[in-house]
Amino acid sequence: MTLKVHGIMLSPAVLKVIACLKEKELDYEFVSIDFKAGELKKEPFLHLNPFGKVPAFEDGDLILFESRAITQYIAHTYVDCGSQLVPKDHKAMAIMSVCMEVEAHQFDSVATKLNYEFVIKPMLGTATDDAVAAQHEEALAKVLDVYEERLKVSKYLGGDCFTLVDLHHTPLINYLVGTKAKSLFELSKHVNMLLPGLLG
Amino acid sequence: MTLKVHGIMLSPAVLKVIACLKEKELDYEFVSIDFKAGELKKEPFLHLNPFGKVPAFEDGDLILFESRAITQYIAHTYVDCGSQLVPKDHKAMAIMSVCMEVEAHQFDSVATKLNYEFVIKPMLGTATDDAVAAQHEEALAKVLDVYEERLKVSKYLGGDCFTLVDLHHTPLINYLVGTKAKSLFELSKHVNMLLPGLLG
Repeated sequence: MTLKVHGIMLSPAVLKVIACLKEKELDYEFVSIDFKAGELKKEPFLHLNPFGKVPAFEDGDLILFESRAITQYIAHTYVDCGSQLVPKDHKAMAIMSVCMEVEAHQFDSVATKLNYEFVIKPMLGTATDDAVAAQHEEALAKVLDVYEERLKVSKYLGGDCFTLVDLHHTPLINYLVGTKAKSLFELSKHVNMLLPGLLG
Repeated sequence: MTLKVHGIMLSPAVLKVIACLKEKELDYEFVSIDFKAGELKKEPFLHLNPFGKVPAFEDGDLILFESRAITQYIAHTYVDCGSQLVPKDHKAMAIMSVCMEVEAHQFDSVATKLNYEFVIKPMLGTATDDAVAAQHEEALAKVLDVYEERLKVSKYLGGDCFTLVDLHHTPLINYLVGTKAKSLFELSKHVNMLLPGLLG
């Protein structure tokens, strides 16, 4: 049975799923979606995700979308393959769950906006809005301040082992450290120490 | 051992956790946070949630925040109490997980903005911006269109049983059906049929 990922390779949400499959050492087929041809918003893609967003995922007759739901499914279903990405202890799982929500609701929204200013706009030939970028940099710095305190007592962002929490952060951090936003990560000593392990 | 919810009673995120505890028939202590006195952004609240947002939750020495992480912890930990809020079947759980992400990333953001225009602004004595509200109504209608199709083949929003997915929707729907946005829900036959069960 072939696992299939439908997506656009540059999308951070798609890269979350790809990173998870690689950590689990699972083979998969990548089905590229032609964004410019409008394939996201028409059949057959809408059958996979009625909201018309990447990624979508197939495991046999099971169709899933929303990247974090997909990675959780992979981590729990293929628990004996590759890296262990979820803790077995019940309380550790609850804390990891909090940290996954933090990534989704605190980190991702601001990092996505900063990525748009520093990575996407230059790719599209549009000028970065420095004032807007500065606002997002300030917001990201506040999130990293919380992470810095957390990493003084916890080896990784979701607990004492590398988990889905760390993995979910990697695509956007990978993009941002290639821009001037890198200095924000360098300012946070423990966050900066974690980066080689995340981006390895 | 007393379960404690720290929050502001009008907050939809806090109401998600309260609804979950009621469904599980669990006793809890509610610790009211004085938002106007700035208690969210200082100790001791920041010890519970370093991002300074409600709700926070305590179960003995375990401290959690982020409403959806809290409800998942309660549903899985107190599995034998009250209503069953998560499916036991692995594939059904994966589909529920997708639908929880849909609530978080598609429904909640637009419903929160509409709630701000139709509920919060009038409470604050500020005028609703009709043009902005109309944009959010259009966006919410698109989400409800997907829900309508889903509910033709699925009894509830997360599968064939009432789950955390339905529960997470209830606070904002409860607010919105008290406003002119009610007509959006009435236009979707299957969504409308589900409301009495959700708002019971």
